[in-house]
Amino acid sequence: MGGDNAPEMIVEGLDIVCRQNSDVHFLLFGDQVRLTPILERYPAARGACEIRHTSEAVAGDAKPTAALRSGKSTSMRLSIDSVAAGEAAAIVSAGNTGALMAMATIVLKTLPGIDRPAIAGSLPTQRGASVMLDLGANVECDAENLVQFAVMGEAFARNELGVAEPSVGILNVGVEGLKGNEAVKGASAILQQSRLPIKFYGFVEGDDICKGTVDVIVTDGFSGNIALKTAEGTARMFAHYLRHYLTGSLFGKIGAFIARGAISKFRSQFDPRRYNGAMLLGLNGICVKSHGGTDGIGFAHAVDVAINLVRRNLNEVIKQDLERLMSERRVLQSVSG
Amino acid sequence: MGGDNAPEMIVEGLDIVCRQNSDVHFLLFGDQVRLTPILERYPAARGACEIRHTSEAVAGDAKPTAALRSGKSTSMRLSIDSVAAGEAAAIVSAGNTGALMAMATIVLKTLPGIDRPAIAGSLPTQRGASVMLDLGANVECDAENLVQFAVMGEAFARNELGVAEPSVGILNVGVEGLKGNEAVKGASAILQQSRLPIKFYGFVEGDDICKGTVDVIVTDGFSGNIALKTAEGTARMFAHYLRHYLTGSLFGKIGAFIARGAISKFRSQFDPRRYNGAMLLGLNGICVKSHGGTDGIGFAHAVDVAINLVRRNLNEVIKQDLERLMSERRVLQSVSG
Repeated sequence: MGGDNAPEMIVEGLDIVCRQNSDVHFLLFGDQVRLTPILERYPAARGACEIRHTSEAVAGDAKPTAALRSGKSTSMRLSIDSVAAGEAAAIVSAGNTGALMAMATIVLKTLPGIDRPAIAGSLPTQRGASVMLDLGANVECDAENLVQFAVMGEAFARNELGVAEPSVGILNVGVEGLKGNEAVKGASAILQQSRLPIKFYGFVEGDDICKGTVDVIVTDGFSGNIALKTAEGTARMFAHYLRHYLTGSLFGKIGAFIARGAISKFRSQFDPRRYNGAMLLGLNGICVKSHGGTDGIGFAHAVDVAINLVRRNLNEVIKQDLERLMSERRVLQSVSG
Repeated sequence: MGGDNAPEMIVEGLDIVCRQNSDVHFLLFGDQVRLTPILERYPAARGACEIRHTSEAVAGDAKPTAALRSGKSTSMRLSIDSVAAGEAAAIVSAGNTGALMAMATIVLKTLPGIDRPAIAGSLPTQRGASVMLDLGANVECDAENLVQFAVMGEAFARNELGVAEPSVGILNVGVEGLKGNEAVKGASAILQQSRLPIKFYGFVEGDDICKGTVDVIVTDGFSGNIALKTAEGTARMFAHYLRHYLTGSLFGKIGAFIARGAISKFRSQFDPRRYNGAMLLGLNGICVKSHGGTDGIGFAHAVDVAINLVRRNLNEVIKQDLERLMSERRVLQSVSG
């Protein structure tokens, strides 16, 4: 029930997914009275969806604590419960991010070795796409949190980008070792000393994100959220001025008309729907967050992200990586002790 | 002597400035043997420049502490000394930012009421231009630092943007009061309670930077540096793909040729030289940092920034604003006490 055009947009997205995947089944948590007529119009989705009725939903502006306390019968909570119960393999939601994060953390719990979950998503770069985390779940992080993000983000990138050995960088205000705050310096030292099979690149700067210098950009949720939204805003400003100048003169209009094929390819490269679907990484269960303002095509992409993560058993991979990290540290500690 | 193409680029920039300003005089700190033949080629600059010879210069990769300790005869240090001595009204440098910051802080000292200087610069937005600070001088900031940045940034924006009452926002991961770290929440509370004549907007997010939601974006140097460089990187990626698609097909090439006037206007809108010249705000003296990789046109812009700040007596304005802030607080404290 979450998102600007839910539940219509949700069902439309599921319909797109169902037409490409015959083996996926959906539990649809929400208002049966509203969902039934919509499903009538989307036959592919109807065949794969089972409605679990609830009349309650988490409001878009609800506080996470309030949603946790009094939202036990909401569509969001029930869908998370279904993952905890093993009934569903993943949850995809376009609803309130803070509430989703809080509920999923309480209900699903974090993976062993993970202190805090992080939000990871992919974004376009000059080389293709990269993964960045945390995109806003944790405004303050220490070195240990960032190391855990690196381990989880690397596993996520192997899955999401299809890169065998993703390179990992820590976002900083300079590439020299002296630069930055204690958290990034500490995390860099731990990753440099570790014998984890992670291709650790070192520090990267803001302009390295879109350059595609590394496959995984690790940062705290404060800087990560600001970087992501700054990139979105810059892209929108760029598009705004391009349109402004091309439509502002006759030659501009004619040129744009002749080059419309190239311009349309250019636009589709930055279509935010292609990058929709951020994962709440570090939980005992696959939980994907769709942008609330997306449409059916964008929501279908978020569902695809979840399907891929389930198929590749991401959380098992992360668990093994974390166990390796922890056992290696125990060895180091016993040696140094 | 600082910058990628110094000192030629510096003299070229001064020549541009001198052709537009007959009343400006320059003290040129650097190697006389190299500077003299260059000045021969730029008659306008030659008439306004006085060479102060020194053979030493701060290296681009020198550590700030090393530059402070052993750089007392460098061109950078001598030029700062000339401002401290009242011989020059401002310093403009394209050299090592960290060294400039450290030397200027030690030599010029901070303004009364300012704990740490900040780097402020302007950047393009959908509404024109905004000012952002801190762009990287202080990786960790508390609420008090951010409040001081707001006061200084507001005064700088009145000057730099020519806006009578600039609006001020604090960069955060959400606009609701609950979001963010202690520093941004604390600074917002102080600015909301204050009766300073500042148009305080509240929190802004990353995408508000390029939207131009506020005239002044206040942030710590870690997030500010990352946001600035992320915006630069996104703009470069956008330009890269636009070129890629337009040159990748015949129709794209023809269209781009016909629309070349519009595309050239579009490109000039984002010309980084137009936004060159960041100020080290909060020092007892005007100190402007030019990008090291710029050319004569860009350096001329940085010098223009410095000239305007001197003409409008920026530091006096900031001092008065700070005194008002502090006296108001004393009143508040005596009332609450």
